[in-house]
Amino acid sequence: MISDQLLQQIEFIKEIDKLKYIQRKTKLLNSDRNENDAEHSWHLALMAIVLAEHANEPVDVLKVVKMVLIHDIVEIDAGDTFIYDTQKNHSNTDEERLAAQRIFGLLPQAQADELIAIWEEFEAGETKEAKFARSMDRLEPLLQNTSNNGGTWAEFDVPYEKVYQKKSVIKEGSTTIWNYAENVLNENVEKGILKKA
Amino acid sequence: MISDQLLQQIEFIKEIDKLKYIQRKTKLLNSDRNENDAEHSWHLALMAIVLAEHANEPVDVLKVVKMVLIHDIVEIDAGDTFIYDTQKNHSNTDEERLAAQRIFGLLPQAQADELIAIWEEFEAGETKEAKFARSMDRLEPLLQNTSNNGGTWAEFDVPYEKVYQKKSVIKEGSTTIWNYAENVLNENVEKGILKKA
Repeated sequence: MISDQLLQQIEFIKEIDKLKYIQRKTKLLNSDRNENDAEHSWHLALMAIVLAEHANEPVDVLKVVKMVLIHDIVEIDAGDTFIYDTQKNHSNTDEERLAAQRIFGLLPQAQADELIAIWEEFEAGETKEAKFARSMDRLEPLLQNTSNNGGTWAEFDVPYEKVYQKKSVIKEGSTTIWNYAENVLNENVEKGILKKA
Repeated sequence: MISDQLLQQIEFIKEIDKLKYIQRKTKLLNSDRNENDAEHSWHLALMAIVLAEHANEPVDVLKVVKMVLIHDIVEIDAGDTFIYDTQKNHSNTDEERLAAQRIFGLLPQAQADELIAIWEEFEAGETKEAKFARSMDRLEPLLQNTSNNGGTWAEFDVPYEKVYQKKSVIKEGSTTIWNYAENVLNENVEKGILKKA
């Protein structure tokens, strides 16, 4: 006998395969190939593990890893929203909440509740784990765009000030990593890759 | 001042981006698009989190997650070896050990040592965490091939007995999940998707 619990979990596991098709605007390092959400989430999880010591406060690493592994799953239904989009609010849309209910709702109730709570915690960005997870989510495209001669900043004419504002969220998770990120941003300005408005 | 420690970690984070280019033989669910190692590793990590309760013995979930997130990183240098390859031993090759030394060796020494030890633990498959991690690694392509009318089993004429032998590793990590997997294999035989030798 296979338990309903396990069958529900398998349905969730099958459903989230679709995250591999959700394309981000950012490209892989030194590349013109777009990154997808599953690859992105994998990268953030390993970044969180490797960089955890730099968090402003000691974090529950497993919780951060869960956050980054699931943070984009709602995009299976709601699609990727570009961080520098001027029309649409980046997150917390009703569409994303419905997506969370539907997709995590495939799981047994207790697990669905846990993962929805973790996703909402990430979105709210108020706990130390959410702050650190969000700093990983900002750092990865910084490395990518820097390697790609500006990447999406150049492609969508995003000025230094706007990038600086979005990236400064890193500081809330880790001042050490923010020091590094700020240096990289300044180097990009010096090289003419990032332009002041 | 940016510490050498952080700079080494960033170099590692940049290097492992290459895992997104390593193609597996298996295809995504209901798809003819090959999966890459980064997507695969992301999927196993979430599977491990969702299915941990079914492990034969309680496991350290963070350790299992680390294992599956890094288990294929050596393939950046050594390439993907197909599990049903009859010519080449699947793993533990000298090439993979050298790759582990080079890639994890980009990290500060203590972290490099930790991740190499976790990778070797996964490869040896003897601890409860390694057994559970390996069961995830066997389960995902079972779901994929089943959805793809046999997938790599059909493509490479792999008979039921060989698949059964490779998949039975799942039992060491979870008898519950193995019961499910055995059922799926039998259904594949009944549908003519898997053929007995």
